[in-house]
Amino acid sequence: MSNILRLDSQQEGFAEKLDALLCREADTGADVQDLVAGILADVKKRGNAALCDYTERFDGWACTGETIEISRERMQEAWNSVSDMDRESLQMATDRIRAYHERQHQDDWEYTDEVGMTLGQRITPLDRVGLYVPGGKAAYPSSVLMNAVPAVVAGVKEIVMVVPTPGGEINELVLAAAYVSGVQRGFAVGGAQAVAALAYGTETIPAVDKIVGPGNKFVAAAKRQVFGTCGIDMIAGPSEIVVVADGGNPAWIAADFLSQAEHDEAAQSILVSTDAHLLTQVASAIEAHLQVLPRAKIARASVETHGALILVQNWDEAADVVNTIAPEHLELALENPDEILPKIRHAGAIFIGHFVPEALGDYIAGPNHVLPTNRTARFSSPLGLYDFQKRSSVIRATRAAVEAIGPAAAHLAHREGLQAHALTLELRLKDKS
Amino acid sequence: MSNILRLDSQQEGFAEKLDALLCREADTGADVQDLVAGILADVKKRGNAALCDYTERFDGWACTGETIEISRERMQEAWNSVSDMDRESLQMATDRIRAYHERQHQDDWEYTDEVGMTLGQRITPLDRVGLYVPGGKAAYPSSVLMNAVPAVVAGVKEIVMVVPTPGGEINELVLAAAYVSGVQRGFAVGGAQAVAALAYGTETIPAVDKIVGPGNKFVAAAKRQVFGTCGIDMIAGPSEIVVVADGGNPAWIAADFLSQAEHDEAAQSILVSTDAHLLTQVASAIEAHLQVLPRAKIARASVETHGALILVQNWDEAADVVNTIAPEHLELALENPDEILPKIRHAGAIFIGHFVPEALGDYIAGPNHVLPTNRTARFSSPLGLYDFQKRSSVIRATRAAVEAIGPAAAHLAHREGLQAHALTLELRLKDKS
Repeated sequence: MSNILRLDSQQEGFAEKLDALLCREADTGADVQDLVAGILADVKKRGNAALCDYTERFDGWACTGETIEISRERMQEAWNSVSDMDRESLQMATDRIRAYHERQHQDDWEYTDEVGMTLGQRITPLDRVGLYVPGGKAAYPSSVLMNAVPAVVAGVKEIVMVVPTPGGEINELVLAAAYVSGVQRGFAVGGAQAVAALAYGTETIPAVDKIVGPGNKFVAAAKRQVFGTCGIDMIAGPSEIVVVADGGNPAWIAADFLSQAEHDEAAQSILVSTDAHLLTQVASAIEAHLQVLPRAKIARASVETHGALILVQNWDEAADVVNTIAPEHLELALENPDEILPKIRHAGAIFIGHFVPEALGDYIAGPNHVLPTNRTARFSSPLGLYDFQKRSSVIRATRAAVEAIGPAAAHLAHREGLQAHALTLELRLKDKS
Repeated sequence: MSNILRLDSQQEGFAEKLDALLCREADTGADVQDLVAGILADVKKRGNAALCDYTERFDGWACTGETIEISRERMQEAWNSVSDMDRESLQMATDRIRAYHERQHQDDWEYTDEVGMTLGQRITPLDRVGLYVPGGKAAYPSSVLMNAVPAVVAGVKEIVMVVPTPGGEINELVLAAAYVSGVQRGFAVGGAQAVAALAYGTETIPAVDKIVGPGNKFVAAAKRQVFGTCGIDMIAGPSEIVVVADGGNPAWIAADFLSQAEHDEAAQSILVSTDAHLLTQVASAIEAHLQVLPRAKIARASVETHGALILVQNWDEAADVVNTIAPEHLELALENPDEILPKIRHAGAIFIGHFVPEALGDYIAGPNHVLPTNRTARFSSPLGLYDFQKRSSVIRATRAAVEAIGPAAAHLAHREGLQAHALTLELRLKDKS
């Protein structure tokens, strides 16, 4: 039997034990900050020359501004070279991700109020976005789709991908995903040096307005440092799932539990139930699956270090546990999931019922798989159309409107000691032309 | 005549000159990072004891966990103590800010597609938000309203304010603004130590899910460092305005120009016109205003260091200049503003016509005055309701839906080497119960 922590909401110190369970330190690259700052400054100053120096040093190939470019034609070649099932799966995923994100479109609006002010909100896409794609061993074509498709739907004019090719190796399925999802240009570079190239631009790589996509701690540290020069998405931490179950098939629940654990030893899987017997059945099923899964070593380390089976008394308690965890992924494998759903305040994505394993959402359901990790679902959202757009306020006034509300504004300006602010209003108020 | 840079789109090297003009280095507190990290760690560890040590050292008063609290009753006292005009102005601003932000409400949605997947998006408020309010000289009650009201409209249950009171001094109008806008609790602390208290919690101050509001470089550095533990709003840089004008009253335009400049020597004001004569008239009017404005010294330093009067050939060129600047505030003081409006891609807030000086938006129009500065309008938005809410994806599947799209998901999982992911789908697919 695998050695998974069991907790009971009735035991003394349960809240403290739960807190301790959730204290996973995310490695955000604090130790490489200075190294990364040096790389950023160097690429900003020397452009391609620095970019290629670091690429030779870290990825082991001698490149130039010309040889790093991956053209649309090269992506199309990859698309043509992969199998029919590869193409069909990528196409279906792309279409479904597009359909979901199209629902996130918001219209501009404007209204005129009783004093004659016309106020509104305009939404416009970002001009150019950079997509960081990890290379080498952990090459995830699904990540290309999840980042590129919303940008395309948002109306971003140019999507630029960087992907490291250590030892010159490139993943054909990643290129095929870039092709089908609408990436315009690719560059075979990675690491902090690629983030610098996207943020500042080089002779070859255009500067972008926002950088999205996952990476190792060097990439994470670089994204933190360039934030402000361009936008960044969230800094992804270790992934987690919470399954709330009241029965169902223990083997299914165990597989769902392990699907998170196989990602990474730092991943966290937690099962919450009112049924102690189910917790035991799932624990057995986890062990059975671990006997045959290729990534059992990683998954076992994850479940034995960070996993937990939690017994609660009722669904109110279950909701409290979920809200404390604020999980990236939440499965409600329940007969009556809509009883607990209104009580859930914090979760990145919620999978409802017995037929929706998280993996369906990771690849093909349509909603984004880039989700807030490590309790950040308390204040942040899945990647979406809105990450590739920004809003502008629109403000129009008639003379009558300024007369109605201008004096109050001028008063507040004087009270804040900002007389030029007040003057702009007073000049309009005294104008009788 | 004040010495303001004049540029002409026809001159050689115009693009480079414009770029150079826009290169204002924002002081984001890189030099105080280590100092701030020490304060954060100390408050995290020692709570109130550390918070009060730093408050005594930096703000000069000996406080305790009890004496730092500013109750709702104290806020109400302040509300009762200010003048009728103060109360009316704050009330009008609060009502108008609330009305605008209520328009930003979005409904949850769910749809069922042709394969039987039901997909949706839920929006929920943050639980608890911390509002940083600068104290001492630069006390801005309008900033309290602009940060607190959207949080209230979003449904945030608890809004906590921190405001430093150097030498024990507190601004009554700030407290009155906190009262009318719905701040529940206040604490008379500031600086990096107050940010730490909000992020980690102390015996007295509850930990919050997001920290918003402007501050000095210590506050900015602290917010950057706690990001991840809680959310933060943008890091505000020096403020700017671009006025595009084709006539109108030079004295009005000059006042609008100076209303930005009086904030800060690092602020930037730029006027763009097709009319060289207007540029000269405005330059004269700026000088005339500077003779009488109390903050003339700051405004002159800003205008002479960062200001510019730019002559363009037509409105296409004007739009290009605006999009390059991506200004925080844009005034279109034009006879036909809607001709150029569709060409504007990047701006925080757009003030349209001759009767909308920026100051109207700063205080009372309704849209938020917390706007993306320093070219970040390329990728970010005004503070809004959406900053106090987060989204969750909702995913439901029938057995038939999993049969339709599950095989493609399982295929992609195998291609990414994630067999437990595939297993979760295969178990459901082979179930015939």
